[in-house]
Amino acid sequence: MQHQPQRDQTHALLRSRNIERALFANLATVKWLTGFAPPIQTGTSAFLGGPPMVWYENGYWTLIVLDWQEVNAGEFARQENCALVSYTGYTVKQPLTGQVKLRGLFRSVAQNKLSGKIGIELRDAPADIALALHEIGAAELIPTDTWLDHFRRIKTTQELQKMRDNFRLTDIGHAAARQAVQVGAREIEVWNAAHAAIERAAGQRVPLGNDCVVGYRKENIGGWPLDYEIHAGDSVIVDLSTILHGYWSDSCATYYAGEPSAKQRAMHTTAQRALELAISLVKPGAVARDIDHQVREFMRKENYPVYPHHTGHSLGVTSHEDPRIVPYNDMTLQENMVIMLEPGIYFPEETSVRLEDAVLVKKDGAEILTHHDKSIP
Amino acid sequence: MQHQPQRDQTHALLRSRNIERALFANLATVKWLTGFAPPIQTGTSAFLGGPPMVWYENGYWTLIVLDWQEVNAGEFARQENCALVSYTGYTVKQPLTGQVKLRGLFRSVAQNKLSGKIGIELRDAPADIALALHEIGAAELIPTDTWLDHFRRIKTTQELQKMRDNFRLTDIGHAAARQAVQVGAREIEVWNAAHAAIERAAGQRVPLGNDCVVGYRKENIGGWPLDYEIHAGDSVIVDLSTILHGYWSDSCATYYAGEPSAKQRAMHTTAQRALELAISLVKPGAVARDIDHQVREFMRKENYPVYPHHTGHSLGVTSHEDPRIVPYNDMTLQENMVIMLEPGIYFPEETSVRLEDAVLVKKDGAEILTHHDKSIP
Repeated sequence: MQHQPQRDQTHALLRSRNIERALFANLATVKWLTGFAPPIQTGTSAFLGGPPMVWYENGYWTLIVLDWQEVNAGEFARQENCALVSYTGYTVKQPLTGQVKLRGLFRSVAQNKLSGKIGIELRDAPADIALALHEIGAAELIPTDTWLDHFRRIKTTQELQKMRDNFRLTDIGHAAARQAVQVGAREIEVWNAAHAAIERAAGQRVPLGNDCVVGYRKENIGGWPLDYEIHAGDSVIVDLSTILHGYWSDSCATYYAGEPSAKQRAMHTTAQRALELAISLVKPGAVARDIDHQVREFMRKENYPVYPHHTGHSLGVTSHEDPRIVPYNDMTLQENMVIMLEPGIYFPEETSVRLEDAVLVKKDGAEILTHHDKSIP
Repeated sequence: MQHQPQRDQTHALLRSRNIERALFANLATVKWLTGFAPPIQTGTSAFLGGPPMVWYENGYWTLIVLDWQEVNAGEFARQENCALVSYTGYTVKQPLTGQVKLRGLFRSVAQNKLSGKIGIELRDAPADIALALHEIGAAELIPTDTWLDHFRRIKTTQELQKMRDNFRLTDIGHAAARQAVQVGAREIEVWNAAHAAIERAAGQRVPLGNDCVVGYRKENIGGWPLDYEIHAGDSVIVDLSTILHGYWSDSCATYYAGEPSAKQRAMHTTAQRALELAISLVKPGAVARDIDHQVREFMRKENYPVYPHHTGHSLGVTSHEDPRIVPYNDMTLQENMVIMLEPGIYFPEETSVRLEDAVLVKKDGAEILTHHDKSIP
């Protein structure tokens, strides 16, 4: 069953709050509740009438999508207590009125007597739909934004499989990037090599984040690949996330054009040891800020500037979620959380290094999910 | 000045309707009003508090963005009567509360006495912000969705330059795709070759749509590239759109693996003649549905099945806009519209052809904006 545990948890929560009806309009929530993941690479389609939405009513779930999205959403409709409805987006016979059609469809889906409490993700729901619900005097709108975030932290077996598929792709991307980092190549060419390898392996288009930057950039922590040429002795941080089945991966390594300098070797070794330390601290019950503190302390003792970013973070239907491994966070790790760990050392306009692995929190420690080569040649 | 004519037109429209304040939340509108174009390749950022928005007040324009987006939005703030404000998205010092911060920032921007009419793009505005405005009893919300669409049809010189930059990229992508269509290659590899060539030429990441399909697919009109292998004699439809500066291009050609058959040659020649016919009909005052009708009639007379899609469409800050060249549309073409024309012939599970050019409507006819090679070898 596609994402049945997610719906069961949500159903129980809504019942406990006496909420019989709810509208979910946040894309992360919709993906998490249904397993449906629309393409995102080129932004909002001109044929879309609004975001994909889920209407909940007493344990029944209706996914509302554009007709062109049915091919990706069909599996959902075959689940128990689930239905799929769609509106016409593109047609040559009439003006493009997906927005109007979506609203009409929503009214027909949510046609039952709307009294009592209606849960609604108010920050993402289209305003006109929310106002229409609001103006039904008999109903009370209950904002449910972020209500499901804590459920999302513990991954199901099915989610872990989706994430493993993603991490396999980033491994492939890194192997290609490592080869492509050569004197005279440009950041964007390294990126293209990684992206092509990933898409070829997946046999389809795959959205790709995050960073591909040479060490001599002013901001050499991260950034999108540009036209910077790789010079002899440059370090190149390559931080790759793929999005497959609606889930994110993440991963980082640092590559060198030609022979790394002694300074780069020392930095790289320290980053490796910091990452090993971080991984060794992962277990159920570990406190996020303690892991963060110990890895930063290690960097300090090694006499390197302490990285200004997080030590790590979780991820899933979004790229960066709790538990964040940051100084303020007193959350404890639990089994079946997935945690990214990514210590780095940065000398702006000179050189930089960051190494990142994903780990699955297991009963007796961490299982590493990323398998890209992070060694220095 | 960045997009000053767009704001002047909008200001005049709002004044004529006695609307002193307005919230724009549709991304196409925001791009069109400001020239600001956020990255879209990997979907909504985990650090975003909501869509970029524009608050209008009596001729003054405030663009509200995530702090990380300031780098792309800075130019806007240097315009007359324009301001840029941003909220903190990512920090390691506090939980990620961009959603909360955006709302606080919006309240401070829209702090003046909110009475009278407030224009609002209700289909895209976050529901909680719209409800907050709604509950101010002194104000009346006026939905302004689609109000600016007709302005968007006539391109400014600045917009045309942005679009020419895009069409240059699709030309480059097509040259690479033509080379990559070889026996044994896969659709996704053709796509990667085009995408890499485009990004290398641009020196940055560029979102890429639309289609890359072999003729033997069941749906050989279009679709995203998959793992289909190209066999000897296959046709491959490659339809490319880039998004640069927030604007879309479009373009299509059909390539062949090895020697095209006599049937394919005849189809290709007919598609070329249909495209030439369509282009010859473009001039100010021409009626969209008349162009559509004549090109379909030509296909009929050539004894080919008439394509089930549009004959063409306009584009700009979205991929598909009016005037659509379709059977029902009685809009007339005007100078400085940009029109895509794309007749095709499809024999499902066998072979297909589509050729597409962009034209700019000029006083005395059409200027072709696409320069990719659409010939048959």
